[in-house]
Amino acid sequence: MSAKVIDGKAIAETLRARIAIEAAKLIKDHGVTPGLTVVIVGDDPASQVYVRSKVKQTAEAGLNSTEHKLPADTSEADLLALIAKLNADPSVHGILVQLPLPKQIDAERVIQAIDPAKDVDGFHPINVGRLNAGLDSLVPCTPQGCVLLAKTIHPDLTGMNAVVLGRSNIVGKPVAALLIQESATVTIAHSKTRDLKQVCRAADLLVVAVGRPEMVKGDWIKPGATVIDVGINRVPGAEGKTRLVGDVDYAEAAEVAGAITPVPGGVGPMTIACLLANTLKAAALAAGHEPPKF
Amino acid sequence: MSAKVIDGKAIAETLRARIAIEAAKLIKDHGVTPGLTVVIVGDDPASQVYVRSKVKQTAEAGLNSTEHKLPADTSEADLLALIAKLNADPSVHGILVQLPLPKQIDAERVIQAIDPAKDVDGFHPINVGRLNAGLDSLVPCTPQGCVLLAKTIHPDLTGMNAVVLGRSNIVGKPVAALLIQESATVTIAHSKTRDLKQVCRAADLLVVAVGRPEMVKGDWIKPGATVIDVGINRVPGAEGKTRLVGDVDYAEAAEVAGAITPVPGGVGPMTIACLLANTLKAAALAAGHEPPKF
Repeated sequence: MSAKVIDGKAIAETLRARIAIEAAKLIKDHGVTPGLTVVIVGDDPASQVYVRSKVKQTAEAGLNSTEHKLPADTSEADLLALIAKLNADPSVHGILVQLPLPKQIDAERVIQAIDPAKDVDGFHPINVGRLNAGLDSLVPCTPQGCVLLAKTIHPDLTGMNAVVLGRSNIVGKPVAALLIQESATVTIAHSKTRDLKQVCRAADLLVVAVGRPEMVKGDWIKPGATVIDVGINRVPGAEGKTRLVGDVDYAEAAEVAGAITPVPGGVGPMTIACLLANTLKAAALAAGHEPPKF
Repeated sequence: MSAKVIDGKAIAETLRARIAIEAAKLIKDHGVTPGLTVVIVGDDPASQVYVRSKVKQTAEAGLNSTEHKLPADTSEADLLALIAKLNADPSVHGILVQLPLPKQIDAERVIQAIDPAKDVDGFHPINVGRLNAGLDSLVPCTPQGCVLLAKTIHPDLTGMNAVVLGRSNIVGKPVAALLIQESATVTIAHSKTRDLKQVCRAADLLVVAVGRPEMVKGDWIKPGATVIDVGINRVPGAEGKTRLVGDVDYAEAAEVAGAITPVPGGVGPMTIACLLANTLKAAALAAGHEPPKF
């Protein structure tokens, strides 16, 4: 058996094209150009690559894109002052502060300083609370992307036995909240789970977000299950080079699963697409219009 | 086999006694008397009974207790005006609006109008978000009570296979969030779950909050499991009277479980005790002091 590959790159491209159409409508009909501002502190190379992609794809979708690059020794007070300025700027609809932040800055304080209506990462406690309470909110991008990918295989997730491996605030917990909303039966498993392999093997839908290269093996997967791999890990490759792998052993898993996301080209591209969708939504709401559904 | 009965009444009494000691300390050392205000709209008989118990136990623990009874035809604007007044009143540390509210009032709007620092029910989205993000918050009372009861049997819940049956915002979801924090493996099951019986039978810890009288039968329970029954249902009893039963068939379940909460006298008494604990916590925080841990 060989799994269907869930082509996140193509699905994200389609989503971005739909966002571009909706953005153009908002501009034409209402004179509102959605604007995303990315704030990056320091020069972490991975963050820089990621921010470049964000800026490029934002512009390609017809959204305004601005970037604030701050030095690594920026004080928390200076960052908070910038956020206050962006909160007050009506041309900015989405504010994304690239994580991780340097040690002298309390990330939690920064997240809570962002206007919840501009919190396109969906990390502000009020957005977390609204998501968990089943109220409309800005939903974290990667979890949103995971569920959209799962729904390309199973348009209705009702009653499915879903296992989320990982309980982080940025992926595991919000994925679980979204799957509960979709009426799946959801198990949240993690490093303290007894007999993790058996728990995973019971899943019709397995979402893995643990940050451990190729931890989930073929025999952890129920034959025919759908596997969404959130991990992006850089490991030593051939000839002294490095390569990217997920949290799932793709070669083994693809033999057993019914459908699986590759790494790269699975969840990754969806994250930025969902960020653009959130920015568009924030802009529509700020202007008093019904946001498009994706 | 006959299950150990988890005596919620006695455990709640002990907790209230500890709260009384801590409240007396706060009064003596800092001159702060924790104050709880209960707002009740209309004359739902069940709500009235419940509010009477709250008021009585609040006073017994040495906390200030005030009550606002509003007529059933109170407008949303009038209720919101009262909440604004209570938010501004420094003698009020906890505000509880008894649910359900009459139809003309949007409960969600009312909940969101309460100052999160006085939200002793823990239903404000910012408290929901903080709970889910693992930040300190005012935690909903019934879920807190469930976990305290479970911990009388299992002081350490790490790695336990917990199943929460029910996904309401007021019980199921916050119980799941608390159990995740306790490092249990948590499955959230509900009306759409396939083969609910089998899912429940896998649980070492089963928390049931569905509001369906005696739905969970003996053969739904793993031998030796701990069962926390949140349901309080009034059903026809002998001689034309009524009696209270839980969501679990107690007679059957007690033969299989290792430990079980009775109804009444299980989770119920813990809810008010946790409400008092939240009020004390809110009062201590408002006065700038470290709140006691229970």
